[in-house]
Amino acid sequence: MTRPYAPVPVHKPAPSELAYVPFVSVDNMMRIVAERGVEHVIEGIAACIEEDFRRWGEFDKKPRIPAHAPEGVIELMPTSDGKTFGFKYVNGHPGNTYSGRQTVTGFGVLSDLTTGYPLLFSEMTILTALRTAAVSALVGRYLAPKGSRTMAVIGNGAQSDFQCLGFKHLVGIREIRAYDIDRRASERLARNLSGAGLTVTICSSPEEAIEGAQIITTVTADKKSATILTDNMVGQGVHINAVGGDCPGKTELHRDILLRSDIFVELPEQTRIEGEIQQLDADHPVTELWQVLRGEAPGRVSGEQITLFDSVGFAIEDFAALRYLKGVLATTSHYEKLDLLADPDDPRDLYGMVLRGTVGQPHAA
Amino acid sequence: MTRPYAPVPVHKPAPSELAYVPFVSVDNMMRIVAERGVEHVIEGIAACIEEDFRRWGEFDKKPRIPAHAPEGVIELMPTSDGKTFGFKYVNGHPGNTYSGRQTVTGFGVLSDLTTGYPLLFSEMTILTALRTAAVSALVGRYLAPKGSRTMAVIGNGAQSDFQCLGFKHLVGIREIRAYDIDRRASERLARNLSGAGLTVTICSSPEEAIEGAQIITTVTADKKSATILTDNMVGQGVHINAVGGDCPGKTELHRDILLRSDIFVELPEQTRIEGEIQQLDADHPVTELWQVLRGEAPGRVSGEQITLFDSVGFAIEDFAALRYLKGVLATTSHYEKLDLLADPDDPRDLYGMVLRGTVGQPHAA
Repeated sequence: MTRPYAPVPVHKPAPSELAYVPFVSVDNMMRIVAERGVEHVIEGIAACIEEDFRRWGEFDKKPRIPAHAPEGVIELMPTSDGKTFGFKYVNGHPGNTYSGRQTVTGFGVLSDLTTGYPLLFSEMTILTALRTAAVSALVGRYLAPKGSRTMAVIGNGAQSDFQCLGFKHLVGIREIRAYDIDRRASERLARNLSGAGLTVTICSSPEEAIEGAQIITTVTADKKSATILTDNMVGQGVHINAVGGDCPGKTELHRDILLRSDIFVELPEQTRIEGEIQQLDADHPVTELWQVLRGEAPGRVSGEQITLFDSVGFAIEDFAALRYLKGVLATTSHYEKLDLLADPDDPRDLYGMVLRGTVGQPHAA
Repeated sequence: MTRPYAPVPVHKPAPSELAYVPFVSVDNMMRIVAERGVEHVIEGIAACIEEDFRRWGEFDKKPRIPAHAPEGVIELMPTSDGKTFGFKYVNGHPGNTYSGRQTVTGFGVLSDLTTGYPLLFSEMTILTALRTAAVSALVGRYLAPKGSRTMAVIGNGAQSDFQCLGFKHLVGIREIRAYDIDRRASERLARNLSGAGLTVTICSSPEEAIEGAQIITTVTADKKSATILTDNMVGQGVHINAVGGDCPGKTELHRDILLRSDIFVELPEQTRIEGEIQQLDADHPVTELWQVLRGEAPGRVSGEQITLFDSVGFAIEDFAALRYLKGVLATTSHYEKLDLLADPDDPRDLYGMVLRGTVGQPHAA
């Protein structure tokens, strides 16, 4: 390659600190989780989510921005509180497992909205699993029957371990009754939780799993409408944590259960499209969780009531998880610094910086 | 920190290739540009933009998604052709220069929409400067008078160098007549372009700058409506490349010039909000560039005509620039690999991967 003009012979300065963005890789996320303990990380994220739900009105609540292909979807999930901006990139490709890829992966960015500069860039596959468990367990603390000890977990895939640990640490669950159409998934779950302070019973049917459970978590992965729970299976007084039904055409609960339940949601506009309540009329009453967390709406009011958290995941939860992680960076060395932002000495002289970048490079001539 | 349960004692495998995403840092972008030459990079990006404009109908054309603060804006600019997805993160904070930061920085991602996996993560401050010049020069090739040799450049900030080099290489410009309200900016531009095969004349007024110019590039940075060019300054037959007016309330040209010009735009819906034509009626006729590039609409049809490219920047141009860069990665070593995607051996066993990540770490106990 030839460059027909001579660069100005100036030294090449190292980028200043302003040019660097902290980056948490998958490996470093695992180290951070190991350093603190999964349950403490879930607890920390739950605390940030609780704070942010309590200041719900400060947030810009946009719908997800999707790009579709026959194989799946990529979504951008932005939000902002006017001072800080965050977004998550997340994909959903059910066929990915056939090529050894994850169905869902993600990464995210937290930025200072007053300068526009990113504060943090992070993997969000693991972080999303942690925040999803944090939301469920946090909501469980408000809605599950007092003294809940036993949780049925129907669907024993990638999210189920995190759910169990979250409910153990934040709600006090000690017994897990696990069911999956693939028994090996339940065995995997039991193996991973051995030594975690939970008794795991592998069950042969959803009916068996929910026996004696105060909390029922449904977290199956099929991208279609399935009926994991039918009406006659669900007795009075339970809390249902419905995590798996999270996109149009994908639900887990029979409609009749919904009609018997008091339903709690993140953002009604989104949940009516993506959640279990896509089966109900558009004006079916639901309670917004932020109102419960602020004490402005009742949560569980009786021992007979069936409470249902129709979880779909919302951008503010990812924002809170990134905010938690940003706080962690002050006390850990498990991150890298990415040279992501151009930082010329003179902001007007971007090309001059590029020119200087060529000085002394063996490949420049 | 204590972890109350024992991890399953399995070895920790290295992430597979699937887990890594190529990353082009600012430093590596400078190396790539140096390796190839700025003008050749602009040419390569222009070729990708031309290809993508010619298949305009295949693209998902979303508006930018903004988050506002009093100090500025952060925007996400996504697009997709149904097979590949791209987005750019870009900020605009005019006050940033007071704290030594860039007014505009950016980064972007290109992904395989059939798997949802990112193919490339890149800085886009330098890349955006290159693609903006590539768009202008490409359009200049279609609209500028044949044999154009002289370009007036009004506004000599960070983008001006790239504009000059793009028009030199793609249109054949040999003389630059530079004007800026700050003469030091013009001197900086002249210094950077010395040896680049361009004669740079520093002018004392816009009137002086446009004397004898076949092309007039306006690329000022003030975030307000300014009148860089008035009607009586602009003679017949010129091509105006209006780059600086690019957001609501920010324009550079007097309305009367617009009324005498044939106006060419990227995406009319966006340009009517952000471009010079925000000064005109919402139904004022404009020509879409993709139609000119496909030969479906006329470009320049006479020597007397004033053609005006009302440039605001559109997501498909960033997509094309990322696509160019992706192609470059096959022939360069100037990139890193980011451990961005969780890649458990068993996609269902995300928590197992986290557990294994703890094995043997001194900080895990």
